[in-house]
Amino acid sequence: MAELAMRAEKLDGADGLAGKRAEFVLDEVVYLDGNSLGALPAAVPGRVADVVGRQWGELRIRSWEESGWWTAPERIGDRIAPLIGAAAGQVVVGDSTSVNVFKALVAAVRMANAGPAGGEGVSGGAGRAGGEGLAGGEGVSGGEGVSGRRDEIVVDATTFPTDGYIAESAARMTGCTLRPVVPAEVPGVLGDRTAAVLLNHVDYRTGRLHDLPALTAAVHRAGAIAVWDLCHSAGALPVGLDEHGVDLAVGCTYKYLNGGPGSPAYLYVRRELQDRFDSPLPGWNSHAEPFGMRPEYEPGPGALRGRVGTPDILSMLALEAALDVWDGVSIEAVRAKSLALTDFFLECVAAYVPAGRVESVTPVAHGERGSQVALRCDDAGEVMKRLIERGVVGDFRAPDVLRFGFTPLYVGFGDVERAARVLAEVLR
Amino acid sequence: MAELAMRAEKLDGADGLAGKRAEFVLDEVVYLDGNSLGALPAAVPGRVADVVGRQWGELRIRSWEESGWWTAPERIGDRIAPLIGAAAGQVVVGDSTSVNVFKALVAAVRMANAGPAGGEGVSGGAGRAGGEGLAGGEGVSGGEGVSGRRDEIVVDATTFPTDGYIAESAARMTGCTLRPVVPAEVPGVLGDRTAAVLLNHVDYRTGRLHDLPALTAAVHRAGAIAVWDLCHSAGALPVGLDEHGVDLAVGCTYKYLNGGPGSPAYLYVRRELQDRFDSPLPGWNSHAEPFGMRPEYEPGPGALRGRVGTPDILSMLALEAALDVWDGVSIEAVRAKSLALTDFFLECVAAYVPAGRVESVTPVAHGERGSQVALRCDDAGEVMKRLIERGVVGDFRAPDVLRFGFTPLYVGFGDVERAARVLAEVLR
Repeated sequence: MAELAMRAEKLDGADGLAGKRAEFVLDEVVYLDGNSLGALPAAVPGRVADVVGRQWGELRIRSWEESGWWTAPERIGDRIAPLIGAAAGQVVVGDSTSVNVFKALVAAVRMANAGPAGGEGVSGGAGRAGGEGLAGGEGVSGGEGVSGRRDEIVVDATTFPTDGYIAESAARMTGCTLRPVVPAEVPGVLGDRTAAVLLNHVDYRTGRLHDLPALTAAVHRAGAIAVWDLCHSAGALPVGLDEHGVDLAVGCTYKYLNGGPGSPAYLYVRRELQDRFDSPLPGWNSHAEPFGMRPEYEPGPGALRGRVGTPDILSMLALEAALDVWDGVSIEAVRAKSLALTDFFLECVAAYVPAGRVESVTPVAHGERGSQVALRCDDAGEVMKRLIERGVVGDFRAPDVLRFGFTPLYVGFGDVERAARVLAEVLR
Repeated sequence: MAELAMRAEKLDGADGLAGKRAEFVLDEVVYLDGNSLGALPAAVPGRVADVVGRQWGELRIRSWEESGWWTAPERIGDRIAPLIGAAAGQVVVGDSTSVNVFKALVAAVRMANAGPAGGEGVSGGAGRAGGEGLAGGEGVSGGEGVSGRRDEIVVDATTFPTDGYIAESAARMTGCTLRPVVPAEVPGVLGDRTAAVLLNHVDYRTGRLHDLPALTAAVHRAGAIAVWDLCHSAGALPVGLDEHGVDLAVGCTYKYLNGGPGSPAYLYVRRELQDRFDSPLPGWNSHAEPFGMRPEYEPGPGALRGRVGTPDILSMLALEAALDVWDGVSIEAVRAKSLALTDFFLECVAAYVPAGRVESVTPVAHGERGSQVALRCDDAGEVMKRLIERGVVGDFRAPDVLRFGFTPLYVGFGDVERAARVLAEVLR
């Protein structure tokens, strides 16, 4: 025991990111739930007070221009972009993850059927009501595809449920069939009927990291569109969207990006696909000339096509302030520390916890591990309650998983050792 | 001149709502843009600081339960409900107005085709991917309806553009045709192909108040679903959703409800229709058992079916604090003052402004007037700039409209007289 505690102290002493902890509001609790709700960055309260008191309270309507409210979705998108390996101009912030999954999947099915020329292919372009394209759609009897139409959406069967529910709706509304398969089996089911594939970069339950480059390549070989959900990877490990040719991606900002409870999600639209991004939610904020008040919809250029309604400024600017903690941080350094933390946690658990009492469902191989460790035990719900009472906060995922998230910007090795020690006490 | 200023003083002295102004952060500016962004209620900054600093910063993840975050969408919906004439349990807060228009219209088309028994009628119930129902839908050639299917969405041709764009998308994705007509002509175009009708209670440009009871009754006589956009009426005048049998309604909260820039919108689903509300955005927050993490979607009971993803807590709780100003206020008193303010403004403009220099496009009849006055003049853009420089803030709507919104909770008759006087100076 003493040995692991000493190791922790040494590791903390050598941790190049250790200073980042001071940029968060934290107390004596070991907070291992940053993969559900990130801790409060210290810069946020002051910034929010300014947004409310001065920007809203004093400047009022003028702030849409003078305080940069109108352009916040793209500006903050560009702050997130480097963390997910995207060049500027491809990420827009707004709405919830679920809403963005819907936009991405419907747009993906349209792209997959519009052909590489884009926009005005066989399935029709934006804006014509009814009567477009070839087949399928809500209300059509039978699930059979018309020859040549891509009418299948493949979805990760182990996905966080909302992605599956929304994928089902997107399928229903675009005349597609939904095919849930586990990620490992995805390449085997792809074909010329596949329109889009929705995958999670990291499994929310087990913490398994999926092979984004290989799966994206497989989707592309089949001629389909790859949509990735980055909720459990962005801010914890390199994603490499541009490098790996991902088409569309979505993610939340309240986990490893510390944007605050329910802070707005983001949508990535690969630059080459932006002109073909035909949104099912073409709100006035995505219009080429939003203040022209024109009755005809004409989508604007670039990532802002992913915008819908008026941006939610308080939450959005809290997120912007929260992103300051990333200044000068390399995501590769974050990843290195993340793996060291989860390695060390597994080591401490093995040393402290009675053998057989818990079983890790998180992969051992670094290439297959996100930034969390999930331990299965029959009484997980009760165990987590007692852990929280003792100042170690993780979460419980039904029916039997203890989930511990490791946020490299503010979790240290001493926290890890203490968490494992308290866990062992509770389990004994 | 002196006479109108004296009248204003008297009117302010007799104004039962005059004390409400002290509950807002205001300065010497005459703020007549509360129909675009409501002023800051004084209770908001402190509440937001608590939400950020204590609820997020200290309680962190525990706040989902302990601070009532999870139930905020329904709880705040119930605060808005009395202002729009709705009994509790029918309003849910979240997402933007545009996203709620999409939910409402798609659900309306499904309801209209599901028959009165609801849920599992000819167009099928929730959750089956592909292949349901009879006809139409994205990708189907030709716009012709299959006999018996209601396949037309009627939309206010003078609507705020986003409603029209979203209605077009809803039509495209449900195999409907979109039919834009001016509200007065709506009754004449309704028939057994009409699925849903989307109308604005108050026209955003002219300030015209449409006849919600009569239009709703006409829609119902045709067997269709009435969807109302309340953005420019809620908080300014009685709406009477329950009384007039409105089916679905949406509205924003950042105008007369003072929720803050881009604060979340709301959705009203009439109680009798809730079991038939089949959302196109069935996110996990609308699930019967959201933490069951079940792969199958099963919608929860009541208005929460309108929820989608994780609620945007900072903005939502700022809105909740903002709603405190309505304690003890009757919407009938607000309406009486609103009409008195707009009457007095028209009177002052007639007295001060050179004849023929501006023309009001807002109806004179009380029964046809919202809470704004729109004046047309060729150089409206330039005139509004100069008004703002002189401390009278309204807004400009292209191409030629000066728009002045009168928020009875914080605008007084002295403000009105001054606004008209400054307007006359600018126009001379």
